[in-house]
Amino acid sequence: MKESLDFVYKEQKELSTLGGIAALLGWDQMTYMPKLGVVERSEQSALISKLIHERVISEKFWQHIQNLSTNLDNLSENDKAVVKRLEEDIEKSRKIPSEFIERMSKTTTLAYQAWEEARGKNDYNVFSSHLEKIIDLEKEYCGYINLPGHKYDSLLDDYEEGMTVEKLKHEFSFLKKELIEILEKIKSSPIYENQKEIDVKLSEESHRKICNVVIEKMQLPKEKARLDVSTHPFTTSMGNDDVRITTNFRRGDLLFSFFSTVHEAGHALYELNMPRDEFKNTVISDSPSLGLHESQSRFWENMIGRSKPFWKLFYPFFKEESAHLYNNVTFDEWYRYVNQVKPSMIRVEADELTYCLHVILRFELEVGLMEDKFSVNSLPQLWNEKMDEMLGITPKNDVEGVLQDMHWSGGSIGYFPTYVIGTIYAAQLFKKLSEENPNINSEIENGEFGNILMWLREHIHKYGRLMAADEIIKNTCGEGLNSKIFVNYLKDKYSSLYEV
Amino acid sequence: MKESLDFVYKEQKELSTLGGIAALLGWDQMTYMPKLGVVERSEQSALISKLIHERVISEKFWQHIQNLSTNLDNLSENDKAVVKRLEEDIEKSRKIPSEFIERMSKTTTLAYQAWEEARGKNDYNVFSSHLEKIIDLEKEYCGYINLPGHKYDSLLDDYEEGMTVEKLKHEFSFLKKELIEILEKIKSSPIYENQKEIDVKLSEESHRKICNVVIEKMQLPKEKARLDVSTHPFTTSMGNDDVRITTNFRRGDLLFSFFSTVHEAGHALYELNMPRDEFKNTVISDSPSLGLHESQSRFWENMIGRSKPFWKLFYPFFKEESAHLYNNVTFDEWYRYVNQVKPSMIRVEADELTYCLHVILRFELEVGLMEDKFSVNSLPQLWNEKMDEMLGITPKNDVEGVLQDMHWSGGSIGYFPTYVIGTIYAAQLFKKLSEENPNINSEIENGEFGNILMWLREHIHKYGRLMAADEIIKNTCGEGLNSKIFVNYLKDKYSSLYEV
Repeated sequence: MKESLDFVYKEQKELSTLGGIAALLGWDQMTYMPKLGVVERSEQSALISKLIHERVISEKFWQHIQNLSTNLDNLSENDKAVVKRLEEDIEKSRKIPSEFIERMSKTTTLAYQAWEEARGKNDYNVFSSHLEKIIDLEKEYCGYINLPGHKYDSLLDDYEEGMTVEKLKHEFSFLKKELIEILEKIKSSPIYENQKEIDVKLSEESHRKICNVVIEKMQLPKEKARLDVSTHPFTTSMGNDDVRITTNFRRGDLLFSFFSTVHEAGHALYELNMPRDEFKNTVISDSPSLGLHESQSRFWENMIGRSKPFWKLFYPFFKEESAHLYNNVTFDEWYRYVNQVKPSMIRVEADELTYCLHVILRFELEVGLMEDKFSVNSLPQLWNEKMDEMLGITPKNDVEGVLQDMHWSGGSIGYFPTYVIGTIYAAQLFKKLSEENPNINSEIENGEFGNILMWLREHIHKYGRLMAADEIIKNTCGEGLNSKIFVNYLKDKYSSLYEV
Repeated sequence: MKESLDFVYKEQKELSTLGGIAALLGWDQMTYMPKLGVVERSEQSALISKLIHERVISEKFWQHIQNLSTNLDNLSENDKAVVKRLEEDIEKSRKIPSEFIERMSKTTTLAYQAWEEARGKNDYNVFSSHLEKIIDLEKEYCGYINLPGHKYDSLLDDYEEGMTVEKLKHEFSFLKKELIEILEKIKSSPIYENQKEIDVKLSEESHRKICNVVIEKMQLPKEKARLDVSTHPFTTSMGNDDVRITTNFRRGDLLFSFFSTVHEAGHALYELNMPRDEFKNTVISDSPSLGLHESQSRFWENMIGRSKPFWKLFYPFFKEESAHLYNNVTFDEWYRYVNQVKPSMIRVEADELTYCLHVILRFELEVGLMEDKFSVNSLPQLWNEKMDEMLGITPKNDVEGVLQDMHWSGGSIGYFPTYVIGTIYAAQLFKKLSEENPNINSEIENGEFGNILMWLREHIHKYGRLMAADEIIKNTCGEGLNSKIFVNYLKDKYSSLYEV
């Protein structure tokens, strides 16, 4: 027993060390790597993935886990939790051949490069043959995992354990109907008809300055985290004390870099507060699902970041960077602008209301691909049709259509739904927090985020993977995933903003 | 045979991939890593080192190499070259017990901390007991390697294969005498007596701008290389197509960032032109010695970078950034300033003439330590005496004396001489190139570095480790290491600059 425990903890630690190395290889590729480094980088990433996978599925590791698993009663509560989670993980991993992982890793590194090229040339064909290979690999993968029910469930499960197409179709069809209804109402409002962009461009330096203020206010520690620039914003961890977030200072978009920084900082705060001490470098020190992870970023981005008290705090920082804002734009105009609803092409630039429709579109396409109902070649056209159906607009080219997200190039099929799951969870958490803390608005307005952070730590962060995501939400909010809470939140917010 | 060849090539490739990963871990640690990431980073680096070492000394690898080595006649010329080099490398690695490597690694980690503490407190005693341990370990190491001749030869060989104390004593005693003589002459010149610093401070932005101009002119390809910032400048390769250099924009030092950028770019151009095709990812695709590597950085930094035509090209870029330079400093004053000789305490800040004396001082101390002629405790006093003997100045404390370099704390004994070897090689190469290309001055002045680059590729870069460093120099210059050429170059240069 002692020998098995020692081995299992040591192996988890080395695996988590290798995981940190893999994260650095990925982060560098997206931020600083010179362009032509990509071929060697794909070999480096593939090798680390292979080393990890070999160790994860090694017979010796499995035997030690089995040895512990058949003697659970003799273990401490903590060891029991670790061994149970580990057994489930490893059992799943052992279903995937190492050779497959390497193939997938090489394919996706090249596919990412092709996706970038396709975007540069606005030519879907540059990317489509790579995407076809990826879809084939995903189907092969489903064959290995082979969960009962829908094929797509085997993909979903990697990101949102226990989630199924059946449950999602149920939640998403309700949500889609409601969102379209709210959108139609808004569109019929005179406020919508008269709404305008605020025509202000800030320099990259100004954007950078404000982004650094917000992560400081959110108490992201400088000595453990940093903000860099990449095409697509993301968060990654090299370890418990080294978390990196990125943003993109797009000129001409007044709020993009700010909101993506707030979003990623929400992820980063979760990463930095994963269970330590006895659970450090174990399977427990991680998030139980991407949906729950996304609940943290969405919570900060939407529930806090688009709220009125938050802008009482932050509008002055924007005003300081622009004379036009200072002289011509009232707080009310600004607050409406920040929450403006406007159907648009790009998911990551979408407003809070239409965002989920972008994701539901991708979910429908992915499920269709896995059911062989849709072909890879038909995606651009299907994309455009669904944009018209849900948002009433049509992309003028594939760069603002089917080529906009990098996810598919990375082999992440089944990932998108977690954005909506997280958004719904965030609304549920915010409702609960507001009930428990009646001073929340004044705290936000004063930039006092300590209580909010502590509440998230206590109710979400500290559990790591000790429970499933839905269980953690149930524990805190009294029920699991419930999109009605989110719909009610939206109805409240927009009926007041658009007087409908 | 086929099986052994396949195994040996695959293993070399994976080792070189792991080497690239190790390089990225180091680069990130020195450039962007948040401070508290250091504990996890040291675990990541240690794990990769362990994985590399285990594979290098594995019995299976050795057997395959032996199998090929006993059948050399049946191999192609290229395979023969690879197998021979590989056998030498691995045979050497296998002489060192893993347990020793671990002991050395632990000792140097502590010694580095002690060295930093000793510098902070200006107290050599904090460091000396650590240095004693390191010297003992170095002697133990010599026992494993056990080359014939001087004990120190076994250390030198790791950095400068085939070099001996005997050869170096011969070259360095001549060089030392000549350098001191030139320095004395210069000191007696009225120009020396009247020389002044140019009191201009440029912003970091200006420094960065000029550094980016020089690496572009030197044709360092943007898509394969980048320039970042670290405390100490360095060059590292993540692969044949991904080379990173760093500099440091120290305010108040007008030329430091520029010359260190030129120096590191010289290293980077060599790294980018290592043998590819059949030799990619083999032991051949590397430099045969640190001295030859240093010859490339010194060539660009000194022979090109401190020459008159070079400054005809670059002085305008400096003038553009400072009104004072533009109005008050003539080209002649600037060119003299760039080549000013002035004995100073810190090696990395030394001028072209006195630099080698700093290195010879360290060589004499290291050899004395290995011969048990000097004790670790006597080093501060010996250091100061030798500074007085060679440069006529005495450090006011050990921080600007014996504690200035980190090399000894890292166990790098035998490394320093390669700085002088490289400097001498650079002078030999420059002489040869100038003879073969009579237009070199006008090419430099016009920023046309293509011919120079091509010449270095043809005469140095393309060989990788197909020959020893001295052989490569012999092939090109007609003779091996010869400090007379360097001395003549210095005499020419400074007799004109100081009119002596």
